[in-house]
Amino acid sequence: MTAAASPEAGPFAALVDWGTSNFRIWLVDSEGIVLGEGQSADGMSATAAQNRFAAVLEEHLEALNAPPFLPVVIAGMAGARAGWLEAPYVETPTALTDLHLHTVCPQAARKVHILPGLCQKQTGPFDVMRGEETQLAGVIAGGIETGIIAMPGTHCKWVDLEQGIVKRFRTAMTGELFDLIGKQSILRLSIPAEATELNGEAFDQAVSEALSPAFSLPTGLFSIRAAALLTAPAENEAASRLSGLLIGAEIAGMRAFFEGGKTVHIVASARLSALYARALHLAGVVSHPLDGSALVRHGLFAAARKLIVQDQDIRP
Amino acid sequence: MTAAASPEAGPFAALVDWGTSNFRIWLVDSEGIVLGEGQSADGMSATAAQNRFAAVLEEHLEALNAPPFLPVVIAGMAGARAGWLEAPYVETPTALTDLHLHTVCPQAARKVHILPGLCQKQTGPFDVMRGEETQLAGVIAGGIETGIIAMPGTHCKWVDLEQGIVKRFRTAMTGELFDLIGKQSILRLSIPAEATELNGEAFDQAVSEALSPAFSLPTGLFSIRAAALLTAPAENEAASRLSGLLIGAEIAGMRAFFEGGKTVHIVASARLSALYARALHLAGVVSHPLDGSALVRHGLFAAARKLIVQDQDIRP
Repeated sequence: MTAAASPEAGPFAALVDWGTSNFRIWLVDSEGIVLGEGQSADGMSATAAQNRFAAVLEEHLEALNAPPFLPVVIAGMAGARAGWLEAPYVETPTALTDLHLHTVCPQAARKVHILPGLCQKQTGPFDVMRGEETQLAGVIAGGIETGIIAMPGTHCKWVDLEQGIVKRFRTAMTGELFDLIGKQSILRLSIPAEATELNGEAFDQAVSEALSPAFSLPTGLFSIRAAALLTAPAENEAASRLSGLLIGAEIAGMRAFFEGGKTVHIVASARLSALYARALHLAGVVSHPLDGSALVRHGLFAAARKLIVQDQDIRP
Repeated sequence: MTAAASPEAGPFAALVDWGTSNFRIWLVDSEGIVLGEGQSADGMSATAAQNRFAAVLEEHLEALNAPPFLPVVIAGMAGARAGWLEAPYVETPTALTDLHLHTVCPQAARKVHILPGLCQKQTGPFDVMRGEETQLAGVIAGGIETGIIAMPGTHCKWVDLEQGIVKRFRTAMTGELFDLIGKQSILRLSIPAEATELNGEAFDQAVSEALSPAFSLPTGLFSIRAAALLTAPAENEAASRLSGLLIGAEIAGMRAFFEGGKTVHIVASARLSALYARALHLAGVVSHPLDGSALVRHGLFAAARKLIVQDQDIRP
């Protein structure tokens, strides 16, 4: 009781990672220590359909016994055009320590800040990110301010970071293509529905093929089906080959980021991180895994500290 | 009545193109003149589930008043492992005038010949075709025995033909990828459900990008989504760009076929043929459209003439 009454020991902010299909929340104290957390499937897609953003947020806060005036900082798809309230993209090059200068605040019973995404118009081909910029702010909070960051997943982001500034970035649809092609194209007939263990030899061979100058994905993919009809491949061969062709093609397309012997920092689950490290090694690139699990929370907390101090300054 | 009683004027054979999702049949006389035709959605997928191959064939023959002993020649998926009776692949290099030497005959009330597909094991990466070999036999029957043949569609086949022999071939999953990515990936949010007119500028720009050495499909695709979020593209721009990126990537992967200034003969619908001619032109390649509508029938008829004469020779 006494501890809860002390403002230093009590919650300082609620931090929310509101993605397309998932919702995660943390209550943290003024040092960033987690006091409570929750998650659910109330992602942007499910919530936007009924415009229940404020209600979903309050339900989660209530479940964590958050005080009525606790401020909230949100990253991710809640700030998309089809989300709660659009937080317009900030254009590259941009300093990740300044994300808090571009938040929007939807009408709500308490102060809610939604962080912006980033867009690229001048520093490379058109591109966008929403959510990853906050993970990147977490990378900076962890001490890495300069380097190449690869963030594999459904839509993989590669980022050129220089002294805390995103110079340029590029997205590859690798994870989404793996899922679509493996489950719905003709290749589904050769790929088990359940995930299988990696076939290292098939993966490596496919990565090397995809890295070669003459490679073309529409052509390379069908060879998986033909091999299944003409040979008796091991059960995990086709999936590993599909994974290798797609990751290899992604890495080939990202050469501009790592050329000149740069190290690539990989932000991903341990499984995916190991797969990318293996493929990058075949491309002659040194990589280094970053623990991605707490990055978005660290990025949210860094913004919360600035936003909430800012609020207090403004108060009369 | 008199005409029907004369063997010369009556039907000589029934020719069937039995694909994955379609069934087409022609009754022809001994000169190949079409006496009757039919088609339906009784493709291999629908028919195999109930193993109704013999019944479906007889229904169609009856609808055309075919005589009870009329022989039948079939090309396509009816000869696949999951079809009526497997007609094993013939390996390249192989003469297309010899397809009739590799038919299989399922048990049926009449003589039924199923033509084989082709496979590639030694002359290039693993690959297979089933149905297109009969179209190619039709190309040869039409007088083209040597040249590069491109057959765009769901699974596009590129073929190196030399004096009637398939030297090597390669398949690209371009049509299937266009459909999957356009309708089911994140890009569906930027692409109208209904087909739109070609945006020539967007298509050409995308083909040129995909032909450049640094291009990578997983990366190039996401730029379509980003452009839709950051600019106000014309309604038909995203679909034309997707088409251009995929066709360009396919052509880039087929360079080995046309290098050295070879002309590419295109077998496709008029719309698709024009699209490929446009893309090939951007790659500096001269192309020539072939009317594909009757090729499979011509290839079937060429095989039927050999098979049915052969049968008569064997008869006591």
